[in-house]
Amino acid sequence: MQKAGIIIIGNEILSGRTLDRNSNFICLRCSSIGIDVKEVKVIGDKQNIIMKNVLEYSRKFDQVFVTGGIGPTHDDITSEAISKAFKRKYQINKKAKKLLTEHYKKSNLELNESRTKMAKIPIGARLILNPVSVAPGFKIKNVWVMAGVPKIMQAMFTSHVEPKLKREKAYECEEIIVNKPEGDVAHLVEKLQNKYEILDVGSYPFYNPPNLGTNIIIRGRNRKLLKESKRYFCDLLKENLIPFS
Amino acid sequence: MQKAGIIIIGNEILSGRTLDRNSNFICLRCSSIGIDVKEVKVIGDKQNIIMKNVLEYSRKFDQVFVTGGIGPTHDDITSEAISKAFKRKYQINKKAKKLLTEHYKKSNLELNESRTKMAKIPIGARLILNPVSVAPGFKIKNVWVMAGVPKIMQAMFTSHVEPKLKREKAYECEEIIVNKPEGDVAHLVEKLQNKYEILDVGSYPFYNPPNLGTNIIIRGRNRKLLKESKRYFCDLLKENLIPFS
Repeated sequence: MQKAGIIIIGNEILSGRTLDRNSNFICLRCSSIGIDVKEVKVIGDKQNIIMKNVLEYSRKFDQVFVTGGIGPTHDDITSEAISKAFKRKYQINKKAKKLLTEHYKKSNLELNESRTKMAKIPIGARLILNPVSVAPGFKIKNVWVMAGVPKIMQAMFTSHVEPKLKREKAYECEEIIVNKPEGDVAHLVEKLQNKYEILDVGSYPFYNPPNLGTNIIIRGRNRKLLKESKRYFCDLLKENLIPFS
Repeated sequence: MQKAGIIIIGNEILSGRTLDRNSNFICLRCSSIGIDVKEVKVIGDKQNIIMKNVLEYSRKFDQVFVTGGIGPTHDDITSEAISKAFKRKYQINKKAKKLLTEHYKKSNLELNESRTKMAKIPIGARLILNPVSVAPGFKIKNVWVMAGVPKIMQAMFTSHVEPKLKREKAYECEEIIVNKPEGDVAHLVEKLQNKYEILDVGSYPFYNPPNLGTNIIIRGRNRKLLKESKRYFCDLLKENLIPFS
């Protein structure tokens, strides 16, 4: 089972100006191909902090997904920081430069010094193509570095990251909506978890008066066992006269 | 200047089922009272992982905000894990028990064993009252532990955490919307950052064709300097005939 970590880079997330949606997208995609996301971390645009965290995650996880900070401006320092972290030269990648040259010629925009920066990656890293706005991400060791703009990150991930990841059996879920507050069914939910230790049972209250209740989510990669565990739990609820759907 | 870290606890975030909005709320509130959020981390419902991360953040930051895992079910293990982390007994808090007893009597619900668990906190910790559903959070050392349900977390934070934090000068922002792609103004943005090193200049492209452009955000705690830097940047844009608003 592969384990993954996600690093979201950007002061705009830490200031609260921007709600991070990238980690949620990656978590969902990873679930669908059976990769277990173990941690998500949001850090600022600081070279030493990026270096330290990328190295730590690269050692700790099978796959590391990084988003943000690969654009043309002064605060886009991710590529240089990761080059330094892995002690690789940070230099123009010929293929990236060619892609950018063609793209900006077509768009009647100047490939100026700022934009040329987007062709610089750690030497030896592989490009992650960008189907939206061309400027690529890159992969170095087990670290996949993508853009921060959600639309671009998603296109990179779907088209050029996910197809290269080893697919394992997807995580699947069974959900039971219980029309009682969490505290009324906690003992039954625990019974369920204890009986099916291999599955991951979560209990999530919802609180929108007058709608109060609990979503019970059973997650795992064995569909037969998931169905069986759901039947078991529904029987428990019936025995205890607890309404659910 | 106070530094803060945020720890979001919950398998449902890592599986992608739930989009974390709690960290964004806390980041915004911290900005408004001048606290600098340095890191956000999302971790799963695992005792040793919670212990390790809470201790690390408690050492590293002035304030630590934790959300999730203080409910009545088997997967709510935050309070016990944090008790262990700080080597404190995990036991019934009398005031919390009294609050819960009164609440459930009024609501005609049973204060059963599962619900009684919500009165257990590390010995010596202070309660964080819960204006929504009564079951309290707690503060131990510099760690504020709140519910994971956003509505409850927000009420706890606003009513019973924020008033106890040392307020510093709020971070404020000036925003300039540039009607050109990032790469066309990167050199001017860098000039701006270099002139006002004390301010935090961010460049955030937006990409919704046909609307392409860049938000330039200048962030800091000196309003006069913010205004001055904005004027400086707008003059730069005018000189270079770049449209903005």
